[in-house]
Amino acid sequence: MTNQLYRTGPIFLQYGGHLPDAYLSYKTFGTLNAAKDNVVLFPTWCAGTHRDVEWIIGPGRALDPARQFIVAIDMFGNGMSSSPSNTPAPFDRTRFPRVSILDNVTQQRRLLREIFGIERIKLVVGRSMGAQIAFQWGSYFADEVECILPMCGSARTSPHNYIFLATMKMAVKSSPDWLSGDYQGNALGSLQQFWLNADAWGFSQAYYRQGLHLTEKYQKTQDYLDRPLPEKWVDANDLLAQFATWEVADISDNDKFNKDFPAALRAITAKAIVMPSRTDMYFPPEDSEIEVRSMPDAELRVIPSIWGHRASSPGSDPCDIQFFEKAITDLLEARMDVKNEAATV
Amino acid sequence: MTNQLYRTGPIFLQYGGHLPDAYLSYKTFGTLNAAKDNVVLFPTWCAGTHRDVEWIIGPGRALDPARQFIVAIDMFGNGMSSSPSNTPAPFDRTRFPRVSILDNVTQQRRLLREIFGIERIKLVVGRSMGAQIAFQWGSYFADEVECILPMCGSARTSPHNYIFLATMKMAVKSSPDWLSGDYQGNALGSLQQFWLNADAWGFSQAYYRQGLHLTEKYQKTQDYLDRPLPEKWVDANDLLAQFATWEVADISDNDKFNKDFPAALRAITAKAIVMPSRTDMYFPPEDSEIEVRSMPDAELRVIPSIWGHRASSPGSDPCDIQFFEKAITDLLEARMDVKNEAATV
Repeated sequence: MTNQLYRTGPIFLQYGGHLPDAYLSYKTFGTLNAAKDNVVLFPTWCAGTHRDVEWIIGPGRALDPARQFIVAIDMFGNGMSSSPSNTPAPFDRTRFPRVSILDNVTQQRRLLREIFGIERIKLVVGRSMGAQIAFQWGSYFADEVECILPMCGSARTSPHNYIFLATMKMAVKSSPDWLSGDYQGNALGSLQQFWLNADAWGFSQAYYRQGLHLTEKYQKTQDYLDRPLPEKWVDANDLLAQFATWEVADISDNDKFNKDFPAALRAITAKAIVMPSRTDMYFPPEDSEIEVRSMPDAELRVIPSIWGHRASSPGSDPCDIQFFEKAITDLLEARMDVKNEAATV
Repeated sequence: MTNQLYRTGPIFLQYGGHLPDAYLSYKTFGTLNAAKDNVVLFPTWCAGTHRDVEWIIGPGRALDPARQFIVAIDMFGNGMSSSPSNTPAPFDRTRFPRVSILDNVTQQRRLLREIFGIERIKLVVGRSMGAQIAFQWGSYFADEVECILPMCGSARTSPHNYIFLATMKMAVKSSPDWLSGDYQGNALGSLQQFWLNADAWGFSQAYYRQGLHLTEKYQKTQDYLDRPLPEKWVDANDLLAQFATWEVADISDNDKFNKDFPAALRAITAKAIVMPSRTDMYFPPEDSEIEVRSMPDAELRVIPSIWGHRASSPGSDPCDIQFFEKAITDLLEARMDVKNEAATV
């Protein structure tokens, strides 16, 4: 089965723009049970799609279609849901409006309700910007979420992360083939510059020190840097749309919390495992520590990884992936334990 | 007194290029004593000059002209010594050859011998690329150096640091006013892009989290990013020349050690305090830890700073600067103690 589209109709966005005819792309795995209490929501991250979620779903794994009903939803701007690259004029390319994390969550919630009648989610799990979505779900719709597992992400984009994103925007926009966003085909130079920047930021110093980037084909660091881009990769305007979402991410910047960040964290009553990577330069563990202190039922569980921001991503260290899957299982089973206790009382 | 120039005459460089008529800029502080045993060498760092060294020299300070003879020497490529911006054609601009750390050390040594008759240095102290110079002095000319204090730098540019430099080169070269290095006046766009990249990498996440970048004038992170460049700042081609030195830095890449890095470290018999910053993303403390393990008389002393790579730089946290000055004093006095002991035997 391929991905489905949920048409939202016209939507008005948190920061003032609107889209006359938007849609979310999603894909489901497994079967929704009668009680509708086996729902795992897995939103995507920057430059990721629902296809990048599939790798961790399978028989006998923490996310097992035999037990859970897993809904992978593409983030606005990722090229699968409404994005600069697939929206007609006048909202195409750089004219695509800023969509917030809460805008994503609001439309994801409509999708779950209207398509599946789901009003309660067992677990929202996400990495990077997907973690920002998980935090936002847990805070804004606290009564509808049992557990969250935000990994390698934050509840609010930090000042350093904002500056990092400014370098990412610069990398995309400073290539001569960018043409103010009106490139034809791919802005290959933009993507290469983004790719280089992501190499420098995405993995840790220790990762490179241990030579984990080197292969038989790429025996020197410069060869590695000269490797070709992944095929059929992201669109440059789509990347910028995702950065526009990311740079203002803040679970408290809304009518419910009015920028009271600790209050927005305190509202997260879901059982949470907050899982930064020890060596992540985008989202260092210290930010997660601070967040967890205000969350009523959260555990900080740092991935002991040298893969930096890429810890537990597809193709990364199997131990990190195991660490990630154990956390999913711990959350799902802890909840079940509570239920069982209630049943025996 | 202003800076002096030492003319090297034609020099042939480690990586194959040459300069027909080069010079080193330097400035001295204090008086060389009769025994010529009060020499402190303070080489500069990337985008720094001898002017940036003066701030830490003064009466009653660790580097006191009443006691030491301090020689601040400008690195090749920094705009004061021979550089792309001050060398005539055909070695101007991007035609300026790659100068190595060892090339710098070799010419610094000539300067000290020919101008002052100095054959032995009490202390080489340097930060960042200046630390790379200090390591190189201690390794290649081990018998001529009593102490080294490499701060926020490494004995060899790590693979991650190499990739970081690739993003720095990209930042400079991808601006439209770069014009392949043949810009007129300043390539202001190049410098702004470099400046932004240096903001993202140069300070730690905690530095920005605590809002140390904000002032009355710059109350938001975006305002801070929009601040004007420092006046009379660096030249874009000069920056690239310094990156060309930096990216291949390796104290063992020479005829003496033939890329045997541990051997080049073991050769450093000087008393050393190796002083990384806890939060430096250019030169993380782990690299220094590894280096110190091979050095016969070295102490690892991590600056407990959130200023990242900028720890102990001008204008940074006074505690960090005190920490730096204490290390200078410890090195200078430890040596004196040894001498006193020898004298009483």
